[in-house]
Amino acid sequence: MKHSLDKSHYYYAMSKDNEAALTVAMGDTVEIETYDCFQGQITSAETVLDALDWDQINPATGPIHVEGIKAGDVLKVTIDDIALDSSGVMLTGPGLGIMGESLEHMEAKMFDVDTAGGRVSFNGLELPLNPMIGVIGVAPENIPVNNGTPERHGGNMDSKKITTGAELYLPVFHDGALFGLGDVHAKMGDGEISVSGLEIGAKITVTLDKAANLSTQHPVVIDQDGIHMMVSDKSLDTAVEASVKQMIALLHPYTGLTLSEMTMLMSLVGETQINQVVDPLKTARFFVPRHVLEHFNISFN
Amino acid sequence: MKHSLDKSHYYYAMSKDNEAALTVAMGDTVEIETYDCFQGQITSAETVLDALDWDQINPATGPIHVEGIKAGDVLKVTIDDIALDSSGVMLTGPGLGIMGESLEHMEAKMFDVDTAGGRVSFNGLELPLNPMIGVIGVAPENIPVNNGTPERHGGNMDSKKITTGAELYLPVFHDGALFGLGDVHAKMGDGEISVSGLEIGAKITVTLDKAANLSTQHPVVIDQDGIHMMVSDKSLDTAVEASVKQMIALLHPYTGLTLSEMTMLMSLVGETQINQVVDPLKTARFFVPRHVLEHFNISFN
Repeated sequence: MKHSLDKSHYYYAMSKDNEAALTVAMGDTVEIETYDCFQGQITSAETVLDALDWDQINPATGPIHVEGIKAGDVLKVTIDDIALDSSGVMLTGPGLGIMGESLEHMEAKMFDVDTAGGRVSFNGLELPLNPMIGVIGVAPENIPVNNGTPERHGGNMDSKKITTGAELYLPVFHDGALFGLGDVHAKMGDGEISVSGLEIGAKITVTLDKAANLSTQHPVVIDQDGIHMMVSDKSLDTAVEASVKQMIALLHPYTGLTLSEMTMLMSLVGETQINQVVDPLKTARFFVPRHVLEHFNISFN
Repeated sequence: MKHSLDKSHYYYAMSKDNEAALTVAMGDTVEIETYDCFQGQITSAETVLDALDWDQINPATGPIHVEGIKAGDVLKVTIDDIALDSSGVMLTGPGLGIMGESLEHMEAKMFDVDTAGGRVSFNGLELPLNPMIGVIGVAPENIPVNNGTPERHGGNMDSKKITTGAELYLPVFHDGALFGLGDVHAKMGDGEISVSGLEIGAKITVTLDKAANLSTQHPVVIDQDGIHMMVSDKSLDTAVEASVKQMIALLHPYTGLTLSEMTMLMSLVGETQINQVVDPLKTARFFVPRHVLEHFNISFN
């Protein structure tokens, strides 16, 4: 069944105590409208940024209760489509991102986004878009988590890999999952070094289902390239290590290899990568290519 | 002029006090023979690994004195060719790499490498090779640096990007540079999570010259894809931040953008990436694609 949910149903923190805005069955599809991460507060480069309400940041649309999914299950979110709005915004300023200590005042920059051509102009430099969903997740296990922060429940993972065609797997901590998303970017590089991608409103279509046979404690993305394990931590060193260990724990049982052999294989074919380094927790991802999964007949469908 | 240097000229630490094994002119080409990182000590999976001499690790061949290059210059190393030996080795064990705490004994695994086909078999799984140079650098500024460690002078950066066709730029700290290399891998993924790639001996051909107009405090690689800034640090968080700042310092003057705009552009097109997370210092790289350099007419040749 196909549902839709408009952006008037927004919230700033994922929590088991949020009331569902919509209830769907497993296997249903939902078109979800989202604000940009500033909830539309920046309307021109001249917007008075000092007046920005920082409590109105990273709204997610939802939450959506998925009937029949239970705590301990894994939610499979298939990203069917991301339809971008036609204009977006970036922001930099003191204290924001890696260059924050060198910047003297807040600056916004507006962009007309050529959604049909898949391009945007940056002062005349034509750049290809890579639409992606920044905030996406379920109700966390314990206390509410602000949508600015990524964690095991998803949240602000800011991953280029969460895009059309990808399947995102999220551990479920509470019956019904309470799924939501927002903070779409028309374009972003790994790291999101300024703390802002090309922020934009969108309509996202997702299909929500229970994962058939994938068990994970952290978000996992499967796409045409392969499989990505995403772990967030204050320290990127810790996040990278944990992403490798979690991936080996997930795949090793399917391989028939000794742990030494599995470790060697992952050193040859696995890749330590980065989603973002600017949110309160940083997010590492560990990638293994599809041909390796296919060789060992590993399929999570 | 074309020179060659055989692997009998090896050393375990880069140092201003090393005596040159060869002197070449700027613009000369050298074919350099290298041991694998274990200096050939592992000859079969049954080699008694407890008897491995850990003082004979990561030999570099050299050093090569480049006539006319001065402290304060930048050395341009063009990787013309990497000709691999036909067999290689991997090693895992307690205390090594990310999985070291879960491994109970040292294990080695030998590989026949299909250099003509560019492939290797891992227990029947066919993998494409990606030959690369693990250790490559010049004499560091101050005290000697063991070849196991990466730093501003290069050293054990373990980067997939240091491969045939790439140009590596290294800051020069002492007249003549005292360049050397070793620790070739037939294959490795970003991270080198087991602490070992597919370790192999090789013959590498490089051309050594003075950089025309690139000034840098850290190693830089330019290849067909774009430009990579490499920074090593105990903390990956620090290394990533520094790699971004160093790249912005290098490119910003060519762009005509404000620093805020440059930061935004780097957030859209730049990518925080990882060479390795298992050496005494970890190495981050920040990547900017070639089409961005071309738009701003940035050329370092």
